[in-house]
Amino acid sequence: MNKRLAAEFFGTLWLVLGGCGSAVLAAAFPGVGIGLHGVSLAFGLTVLTMAFAIGPISGCHLNPAVTLGLAVGGRFPFKDLAGYWVAQVLGAVAASAILYVIATGDGSAIGGFASNGFGEHSPGKYGLGAALLTEVVMTFFFLMVILGSTAKKAAPGFAPIAIGLCLTLIHLISIPVTNTSVNPARSTGPALFVGGWALSQLWLFWVAPLIGAALAGFVFPKLED
Amino acid sequence: MNKRLAAEFFGTLWLVLGGCGSAVLAAAFPGVGIGLHGVSLAFGLTVLTMAFAIGPISGCHLNPAVTLGLAVGGRFPFKDLAGYWVAQVLGAVAASAILYVIATGDGSAIGGFASNGFGEHSPGKYGLGAALLTEVVMTFFFLMVILGSTAKKAAPGFAPIAIGLCLTLIHLISIPVTNTSVNPARSTGPALFVGGWALSQLWLFWVAPLIGAALAGFVFPKLED
Amino acid sequence: MNKRLAAEFFGTLWLVLGGCGSAVLAAAFPGVGIGLHGVSLAFGLTVLTMAFAIGPISGCHLNPAVTLGLAVGGRFPFKDLAGYWVAQVLGAVAASAILYVIATGDGSAIGGFASNGFGEHSPGKYGLGAALLTEVVMTFFFLMVILGSTAKKAAPGFAPIAIGLCLTLIHLISIPVTNTSVNPARSTGPALFVGGWALSQLWLFWVAPLIGAALAGFVFPKLED
Amino acid sequence: MNKRLAAEFFGTLWLVLGGCGSAVLAAAFPGVGIGLHGVSLAFGLTVLTMAFAIGPISGCHLNPAVTLGLAVGGRFPFKDLAGYWVAQVLGAVAASAILYVIATGDGSAIGGFASNGFGEHSPGKYGLGAALLTEVVMTFFFLMVILGSTAKKAAPGFAPIAIGLCLTLIHLISIPVTNTSVNPARSTGPALFVGGWALSQLWLFWVAPLIGAALAGFVFPKLED
Repeated sequence: MNKRLAAEFFGTLWLVLGGCGSAVLAAAFPGVGIGLHGVSLAFGLTVLTMAFAIGPISGCHLNPAVTLGLAVGGRFPFKDLAGYWVAQVLGAVAASAILYVIATGDGSAIGGFASNGFGEHSPGKYGLGAALLTEVVMTFFFLMVILGSTAKKAAPGFAPIAIGLCLTLIHLISIPVTNTSVNPARSTGPALFVGGWALSQLWLFWVAPLIGAALAGFVFPKLED
Repeated sequence: MNKRLAAEFFGTLWLVLGGCGSAVLAAAFPGVGIGLHGVSLAFGLTVLTMAFAIGPISGCHLNPAVTLGLAVGGRFPFKDLAGYWVAQVLGAVAASAILYVIATGDGSAIGGFASNGFGEHSPGKYGLGAALLTEVVMTFFFLMVILGSTAKKAAPGFAPIAIGLCLTLIHLISIPVTNTSVNPARSTGPALFVGGWALSQLWLFWVAPLIGAALAGFVFPKLED
Repeated sequence: MNKRLAAEFFGTLWLVLGGCGSAVLAAAFPGVGIGLHGVSLAFGLTVLTMAFAIGPISGCHLNPAVTLGLAVGGRFPFKDLAGYWVAQVLGAVAASAILYVIATGDGSAIGGFASNGFGEHSPGKYGLGAALLTEVVMTFFFLMVILGSTAKKAAPGFAPIAIGLCLTLIHLISIPVTNTSVNPARSTGPALFVGGWALSQLWLFWVAPLIGAALAGFVFPKLED
Repeated sequence: MNKRLAAEFFGTLWLVLGGCGSAVLAAAFPGVGIGLHGVSLAFGLTVLTMAFAIGPISGCHLNPAVTLGLAVGGRFPFKDLAGYWVAQVLGAVAASAILYVIATGDGSAIGGFASNGFGEHSPGKYGLGAALLTEVVMTFFFLMVILGSTAKKAAPGFAPIAIGLCLTLIHLISIPVTNTSVNPARSTGPALFVGGWALSQLWLFWVAPLIGAALAGFVFPKLED
């Protein structure tokens, strides 16, 4: 179990460092910045790369909502869920600490630090209702793809591509609404460094992804023979 | 059959929500928008992800033209075509309803809502002839890739990558001409919410993709040994 | 043989229609254009998609330089080379004709029509020497990747990804120098519609890719055990 | 051994020519330039394509830090390390010479020539501490992905995708900090042509990647069963 938790720690560290790091450091770089498209690709590739690297060790969840959805769907024992959640949140916090040191290395403040938000703190000023609906629906389909691409009938080996690029797709759609979470650990790391509004809105980025993931864990098995 | 239709419903919902959602929400986001390139990637990834997830359940058509082309090519029974078409259109309408709620969550109107059009309603003001030719040819090659990458001689497991990225490619070429359909269900969903011109031009986005798909269903088997 | 030539015709048509089409129609679309990055992806995806679709039929060369390089490398019979070249050039010309109809469907002239050029007609005004060196070296490495990823020791099924994305990479590097050819058929189609300078510079885009490809066909077998 | 060294020479040549070439020639092309996103994709695709092509010959390291990390992790004999390093550096220098000829073919000077740097020579003016931390951490995770995706339990055939796209991801994050090295050979080639500051800062791009790689070589085996 310790090896699996260490893998989840390193994997979630990579997800948050790579995804939020690309957003903080490179998205709006003058003239040649990678924009929301590049950030979307970066988030997806953290999962694609780690799923190939540590998938055989821990399953490479890197996300409390994923762990819950897999448990509801009968693919993961509920008794191991708490340990995974702790390792994932610790990885996200460690990533935020590393990113804090790098991002302030040019003498600037951290700004929004890629935190998730709604209303006034949504990138496109989308309200609470739109944010909640977006996070539930996006996480629902994320888990549908995870459950489907790792099912017994699925072609072996391809799941990291399907799952990683699904996270890219989700970001291509929804960064303007909530800065895209679908992952409570990813939201918690930066929020701890930003404080204030980011912490007070953090509840939504636990509640909505967990609801969406649990729904998919309930629905997907009914589509299978 | 019910499980297969449910899979087509969810899959087409994801295609329209992801593809049109990225266009409506993120394409022209100020300064860091994903542009036509990002929208092209999003459309393709909806198919890539769902093909890995539900391919083994329903074949993951998500598109009335694909279902017709496969039927003409001898890969799908004509008797199941009507059910697939209904599930696909219902999924596209459900996606448009969800996207309507999200997209108006910042207080704005929906605008063109990623509808397909020609002439005055083509993004680049391309006329009816160019639009018709584009949709026929693009759907023809889409089905050639689908029929080829799922043929008996094809390498197993890779078809979702070939087909998803083919849809990305088609969008990279043709969004300026028609906003890219190649999929009557994808065109129908947004048109119902926009009404007016979008409904009156909708016929082309049923006729042209169905012609292109049927042509490929006729041609491809003649290339095989 | 007729089925293989028909496959090469359709495949090269798709390469030129998709690659040059994305450049002509979408690269510089106001505000949300796909740029050189999107065009690079489009060229690569034409090959990736067709290699999955018709690879088992004709080998999916779509390029006279590729056919020559494979022949020099001992992977393709020299006696079939002429037929492949004719089918590839005819496909490229057919693609240019289709693209001509679409591209003029907004009432505009065709402009450079994605033709290849050097000196005054290089996108970045690179001279003859730089153009020649670029096309030789890029085609050399293109064939190294083709020969390597289709060798007996290579992992089965992945070659279309390696080869298609290699063409994307080549465009990411070299569009500013020559508009990127590495493919005499791709250069010939648009040049016939542009005439003048495009025809008078066409020789370089036959000579340089063929030299680069033949060199790789000579070198690669020496690296194999 | 000679065939393996020749493969490393050609592979590293391709990595530096493709990665640095896209940066120098295409990143800031007026209006349609590929930006940091396109450069990130180009670097990753050099490794993806070569890993499919020469992976079965030499393992396709193309990077002294990768060779060291694999040696520390018990996957490569230390006695072959020096030969690999020499071949890699020679390939990088040859690439820089070719790129020099091409890049000056429009009459311009070479400018920064995609050299790596920190402080005043960091693209975003990040200091020595941030640069060192970034290069150590990025190379650490690069090797974690390499060691994981090529482990015995990993799905066969997919490693080139995981590793190539990991290099893309690393560039999406860190170009603004150091122009991204994680590869001492890639840093050495351009620095020899730029001289001055590039040579005097080159030490960091040997020290930091080698430390990060060695750390991963030490850590990863402890996660495996």
